[in-house]
Amino acid sequence: MIADISPFHAIAISREAHALEAAGRSILHMEFGQPSTGAPADAIATAHHVLDTEAMGYWESMPLKERIARHYGERHGVAVDPEQILLTCGASPGLVLALTCLFAPGARVATARPGYVAYRNNLKALYLEPVEIACGPAERYQISADALAAIDPAPDGLILASPANPTGTIIPSDELARIAAVCADRDIRIISDEIYHGLSFGEPAHSMLEYAPDAVIVNSFSKYYSMAGWRLGWIVVPPALIDAARARMGNLFLTPPVLAQRAGLTAFDCTDELDGHVASYRRNRQLLLNALPAMGLASIAPPDGAFYIYADIGHLTQDSLRFCQKLLRETGVATAPGIDFDPVDGHRFIRFSFAVSTDRVEDAITRMAPWFQAQGER
Amino acid sequence: MIADISPFHAIAISREAHALEAAGRSILHMEFGQPSTGAPADAIATAHHVLDTEAMGYWESMPLKERIARHYGERHGVAVDPEQILLTCGASPGLVLALTCLFAPGARVATARPGYVAYRNNLKALYLEPVEIACGPAERYQISADALAAIDPAPDGLILASPANPTGTIIPSDELARIAAVCADRDIRIISDEIYHGLSFGEPAHSMLEYAPDAVIVNSFSKYYSMAGWRLGWIVVPPALIDAARARMGNLFLTPPVLAQRAGLTAFDCTDELDGHVASYRRNRQLLLNALPAMGLASIAPPDGAFYIYADIGHLTQDSLRFCQKLLRETGVATAPGIDFDPVDGHRFIRFSFAVSTDRVEDAITRMAPWFQAQGER
Repeated sequence: MIADISPFHAIAISREAHALEAAGRSILHMEFGQPSTGAPADAIATAHHVLDTEAMGYWESMPLKERIARHYGERHGVAVDPEQILLTCGASPGLVLALTCLFAPGARVATARPGYVAYRNNLKALYLEPVEIACGPAERYQISADALAAIDPAPDGLILASPANPTGTIIPSDELARIAAVCADRDIRIISDEIYHGLSFGEPAHSMLEYAPDAVIVNSFSKYYSMAGWRLGWIVVPPALIDAARARMGNLFLTPPVLAQRAGLTAFDCTDELDGHVASYRRNRQLLLNALPAMGLASIAPPDGAFYIYADIGHLTQDSLRFCQKLLRETGVATAPGIDFDPVDGHRFIRFSFAVSTDRVEDAITRMAPWFQAQGER
Repeated sequence: MIADISPFHAIAISREAHALEAAGRSILHMEFGQPSTGAPADAIATAHHVLDTEAMGYWESMPLKERIARHYGERHGVAVDPEQILLTCGASPGLVLALTCLFAPGARVATARPGYVAYRNNLKALYLEPVEIACGPAERYQISADALAAIDPAPDGLILASPANPTGTIIPSDELARIAAVCADRDIRIISDEIYHGLSFGEPAHSMLEYAPDAVIVNSFSKYYSMAGWRLGWIVVPPALIDAARARMGNLFLTPPVLAQRAGLTAFDCTDELDGHVASYRRNRQLLLNALPAMGLASIAPPDGAFYIYADIGHLTQDSLRFCQKLLRETGVATAPGIDFDPVDGHRFIRFSFAVSTDRVEDAITRMAPWFQAQGER
C-alpha cells in the first residue's frame, strides 16, 4: 500500500497568491520561510566567475566541507572531521538522507506537534512511524526531556528543531543536555534540524552536537545564508555512519549544484551582510509582536529565532486553510495555515513568515488590522 | 535492519585519480558519465543575467515544464500536460521520487543486469526488492519482452534504460512496444530512464511514453544538455500520480535550483552547440571501436547511444576493481569497474566513458594499447 502523503497546503495558498498577483493584485508573501533577499554580493560574484571558468561536472567541494567542519569548532566547540560532512541539495534531501541512514521501515520517530510538515510526511513516505508529541504554549511548542522520557515504549528516533518551524522557539541549552541524556539512556537516535541557526534574537542557538556527539545534524544555506533557490545544505554524521551516508548520497542524490557549493563557500564569510538581514527580521518580529495582540491575536509564544510567528486564531475560525484563503483574497496577505504543521490542533492556528522587508511587514499590518477587527465583530 | 548499500566503486577510482593528478600525474578521466564540456553558451548567459536580477527563492519554472511537455509532442508525438512534469535536482532524486510514488517496501522491481548501479542500490535503500534479469551480449545487454514475461511471479515494477548505462545499447521500438504489452498484461509498473536521450549514433531513441502512457519517465539535463553539475532533471508521471508525486516532491526535495531551471530553458533550444558534442562522441566511439579489438577487447556490444563502451576483460582478470586500479596507476587512464554494474559477472568487465574530448580519447588509446598488450602476454 503506497503511503498517503498530505500536500503542503501553503503551496496551494502561494499558487493562488501568485495567480492573484498575475491578475494585478498587490500581494504580500508571508506564506513561506524564504528570505526575500538574495545571496550575499560576494557569493554572487563568485558564481559569475565560476560560470565563466568551469565546465561544472559532478563534484563535491572539499574546501566547503572543511569550512563547515571548522565552523563547528569555532561556534560550538566540537571537533568535526570534514569527512563527517555530506553536502546535499538543501536540507530536505539532507533529512531524507539522515532518515535512510538511521531507520528501517516500521521504526518509530518522535517529533514535536506542531512541527515542520516534512517531518511527518517524510517519515510516512519512508514507511517510518511518526510519534507526535503534543507541545502547547506552556512548553513553548517544544519537546522536553520529560515528554521524551514518558513515551512508552521508547521511540527509535527523535527529530528536533531549534529554532523551530512554525514557532521560532529555541530549546534552552540545559534542556538540550537533558534530552541528549534521555536519548543516550533509551537508545534513541537523534536528528537535529538546525536550519534556522544564525537566526536568533536573544542567545544564539546551541548545536545538539555539543551534547550528543552521535546526533545527525541537518543544516542548509537557505535561511541565514539567504540562498534558498540555490539548493545547498549539509548533514553531519558520526564517524560510524560515514560509509552508509556516502553510499546513499552517491546513489540517491549524487552531488549538489557546483555553483551553490562555490558561492556557499564565499557566503560563509559574508557575516556583515547576513547579520544585516537578521537585524531586519528582528525589527519585523517586534512590529508583529506589537501589532498582533491589538488585532486579537494574543496567544503567541514570542519567537526566539527563525522568522515565524505561530498564532492562535481559535476565537475566529476552526478551519485555518479556509481562513488563510479568505485573508489572502480580502487583504492580499499570504500566510500558512496551521494544519500544515499540526493535523490535530492546526485548524485554529496561522503562521506568519516575516522573512520579508520591513516595509512589507508594515503594509501587512496596515491591511490586516481592520480585517481582523471585522472578523472578531462577526 | 538498515539496508546495506554498496558503494559506487568508480567514485573510489576517481578519488585516487584526482589524488594522482594533484601529485602531478597526467590523468585521463573516463570513469564517469559526465560531459567534459560545459553548459551551452546561451544558457550560461542566461545564468549571468539571473544572478544579477533575481533573489532566487523556492521556485518551480512553469515555462520550463511547458517547454518539456512540448518536447514530448514534437519529438515523440505524445501529448503531455505540463502538470505531469515534476522538475527535480537531477535524475537521481527523480528516480527516488518515481520509486516512492509507485512502490511500497517489499515490492519487486525488475532491472537489467548489467545496469546502472543506483537502480539496485536505490531499490535496496527503499526496501524494495531488485529482480535482476541477466542480459548478455546475445541480448545486447538489454531486457526483452520474452525475458520479462518469463519472470514468475510477475514483478511489481520494471526499470528500463535505453540507451543503457553501462553499455549504450538501445531497445528497438518494436521491442519497446512488446515490453509495454507484457507490462500492461501482467500489471507491471514501468519506470523508463531516458537520461541518455539525444545521444544516439543511429536511429534516435523512442520514449516509452509512445507505447505505455502510464509509464513514469526519468530524464535530466546532465547528459545531452551537458549540465551535470547544475543538478536539474525531470520526471513525467501519468495524471493519476500527479498529486502523489507533487506531495512527495514538496516534502522530500522541495524545488530544484533556480539558476539551473532558468538556464535549462535556454539550453533546450541550443541544439546546434549540443549536437556538436554528439558529433564528438560519435568520433570518440569510432576511435575506441577501432582500437579496442586490436588490444584484445573484442567482446563488445557496439553502443547505439550514450557515451559508454562496456568490454569483456575476462581473459585478463577476474577482479575488475583491482584491474581498473592497476590501469589507472600504470597509465593514468581512469575507468569504471564492471562490478559497479553487475555484482555477478561484472568482475570481468570494464566501462570506458568517452564523454571527453577526442584528443583525450586518442591519448588514452596510445597509453592503453601497449599496456593491454603487456597484460595479455603475462
